[in-house]
Amino acid sequence: MREPLRIAVAGLGTVGVGVLRVLRDNAALIRARAGRALQVVAVSARHRGRDRGVDIADLTWCDDVLDLADLAGVDAVVELIGGDDGPAKALTEAAIAAGKPVVTANKALLAVHGTDLARAAERAGVTLAYEAAVAGGVPIVKALREGLGANRIGRVHGILNGTCNYILTEMRETGRDFDAVLAEAQALGYAEADPGTDIDGIDAAHKLAILTSLAFGTVVNFGAVYVAGIRRIGALDIAYAGELGYRIKLLGIARETADGIEQRVHPCMVPERSPIAAVDGVFNAVVVDGDFVERTVFEGQGAGQGPTASAVVADLIDLAAGRRPPTFGIPATALREATWAPMSGHVGPYYVRLQVYDRPGVIADISAILRDEAISIESLLQRGRSASEAVPVVLISHEAEEAAMRRAFGRIGELESVLEPPRLIRIETL
Amino acid sequence: MREPLRIAVAGLGTVGVGVLRVLRDNAALIRARAGRALQVVAVSARHRGRDRGVDIADLTWCDDVLDLADLAGVDAVVELIGGDDGPAKALTEAAIAAGKPVVTANKALLAVHGTDLARAAERAGVTLAYEAAVAGGVPIVKALREGLGANRIGRVHGILNGTCNYILTEMRETGRDFDAVLAEAQALGYAEADPGTDIDGIDAAHKLAILTSLAFGTVVNFGAVYVAGIRRIGALDIAYAGELGYRIKLLGIARETADGIEQRVHPCMVPERSPIAAVDGVFNAVVVDGDFVERTVFEGQGAGQGPTASAVVADLIDLAAGRRPPTFGIPATALREATWAPMSGHVGPYYVRLQVYDRPGVIADISAILRDEAISIESLLQRGRSASEAVPVVLISHEAEEAAMRRAFGRIGELESVLEPPRLIRIETL
Repeated sequence: MREPLRIAVAGLGTVGVGVLRVLRDNAALIRARAGRALQVVAVSARHRGRDRGVDIADLTWCDDVLDLADLAGVDAVVELIGGDDGPAKALTEAAIAAGKPVVTANKALLAVHGTDLARAAERAGVTLAYEAAVAGGVPIVKALREGLGANRIGRVHGILNGTCNYILTEMRETGRDFDAVLAEAQALGYAEADPGTDIDGIDAAHKLAILTSLAFGTVVNFGAVYVAGIRRIGALDIAYAGELGYRIKLLGIARETADGIEQRVHPCMVPERSPIAAVDGVFNAVVVDGDFVERTVFEGQGAGQGPTASAVVADLIDLAAGRRPPTFGIPATALREATWAPMSGHVGPYYVRLQVYDRPGVIADISAILRDEAISIESLLQRGRSASEAVPVVLISHEAEEAAMRRAFGRIGELESVLEPPRLIRIETL
Repeated sequence: MREPLRIAVAGLGTVGVGVLRVLRDNAALIRARAGRALQVVAVSARHRGRDRGVDIADLTWCDDVLDLADLAGVDAVVELIGGDDGPAKALTEAAIAAGKPVVTANKALLAVHGTDLARAAERAGVTLAYEAAVAGGVPIVKALREGLGANRIGRVHGILNGTCNYILTEMRETGRDFDAVLAEAQALGYAEADPGTDIDGIDAAHKLAILTSLAFGTVVNFGAVYVAGIRRIGALDIAYAGELGYRIKLLGIARETADGIEQRVHPCMVPERSPIAAVDGVFNAVVVDGDFVERTVFEGQGAGQGPTASAVVADLIDLAAGRRPPTFGIPATALREATWAPMSGHVGPYYVRLQVYDRPGVIADISAILRDEAISIESLLQRGRSASEAVPVVLISHEAEEAAMRRAFGRIGELESVLEPPRLIRIETL
């Protein structure tokens, strides 16, 4: 049996403690699978004394997390600090510079600085691994990088944020509105006190930017991801979706189009019989379409201590066993600059909900604007009638161009009879 | 760029031709992912001249497939002959003996001789890889061996045979009986002319035996798999399942129990809202429960040229890139002999359908036998009434022991009022 892999762990929050627990509880089987022991030798965190339920008394403690990079007797650094800058980035860069492989769960860091970090790691001849950064316990990074490596990927899409999926599932099951469900999710710990990163789609976009690079061999370009979150999804939209045979999911979608690679995160209506529609609660799912393998689906817990730690330790096992694939599946120097398809050119069917005063001529006004933009209507639903209050009007368009939709509904939103900005949700048949 | 990996392919049926096509069509991206080119240099098949739609004129041809093992200039052998003995086994052994890694899609060979072959490969210091042997394009072997490697696995289960799943799906959707749907599946090429390996559960059992070894670190023990196929599933059973909120699926299940490791393949009733119930047609799905990652689900095409070839080439990319994990995830010498839980000790709820003559006392006779075996009934359904013809009686038991069920329904089957052997289907809540 070879020497142990000696590990330094930076950050002892939920995931860091999880990593220590996995390595302790499953030490024997991990040793068998890695061909050597995995041994945590050093840690750094904000507070030394805190009781975390795992014993760190025998480990080297560093007050300054950056010291882990240069610590003698450390073979690999696990970065669990988080954030796309600051100590997480500094530690990752320092470890790479010191010739030490890095395992991270940090999606923001990879999404923003992934290409540069991958190139630095490659120059230094060290591995940068991040299975835990995307879809928690689901080994989707490995699947795209290795398991499906024979394929030209046409599209990757999925439910990449468990908080949003939990909120949308709760809204559907209880009929409540967004704010009430968010407040409950926060009380239950399923959503952060500051929920913006999740519910505004940023977290999902970080993950999508990473998946795009893995799938298409492109540089990581978080800035090119179109992002919209779920704040404007109302109980009414959820109800209409059900009535129309759809479910609303926050999806991340990356695909090759005639205009370049499209990366987008936004609420979608998906047919309720599609596999992804059935993925509820905090579960994540990723669907990959490859030219030979056709469609594969990967599903599991997207976050949480156990699943995330499982992914971190899988990367450590690979490292210990000497399996050191390129960061994004191909040499970092070969990652190509892509043409990024602008969202304005996206074509698809749309659901639109308007709140209108039910006055004579309002539908005629709306229809005229849509005609001017050559947008054709598949169906139009106007339920209640009220002379004094606004009533919902729901439109389903045929395939239409995003730019035309925006122009049309910009103008429609300004009509005197239309009460609030139209709510557009893209329909994805996938 | 390093030297190409030079490959010999044995067998040019559907999958062999698929491998040639993948390596030709996606050569550039495969080279980028492997860090070197993958080049087929030699082939062997039954008929040299046949037009396969791929050009083999420039490749070395061997009339005797065993010659591939010793051919100079070959770095790796791909075995696509099939069968658990004969030339497939001989070639695999010869290649290993010659120090050449083997990639195979041969589930029967691995299920029957997996432990011995893994040990031989380990002694010779060569890789034996077989992603294509289980669930086609779904990278489940890699997931169990590497991606979920941090976990103690509690259970693996799944739909492992696309032919059976197609037949059961068709039966449900059309209401037709088994024989009619099988005949149609044969006409469409979804079932073999000799369908026994698929519909009697053998193929699924081969795959399960492999998954068990990967999940539990045990020797491969196909002989310890309890196997029952789908021939005795009737249109009536499918209809009753639907009525009771279940779907019938042929599942392979391996799990750790107090009596040892249980391996079984048989038709199951699964709740229609469970994820696996929604996996229809030729799709395969594997569900893994790990102690930290919790539940993960993998789904995709279980067979067919593209998906199977995709898996073979993924193994070749790993080989070319120098990633050479142990055959069953841990050193072959460490694979443990397990206690194998006997099926007779299995405990769970059962669905039983009887055809009975509706005579006074028949239900009393049945109930008395069940009472003698301490089997408690959750529900009993007797629909039609007929003095002259047999009518179906459907029983759902509470948790009961397999041995008691067999004894009871052996006796019940001998009752004069009971027309044919009772049909038992285990209910799995999973």
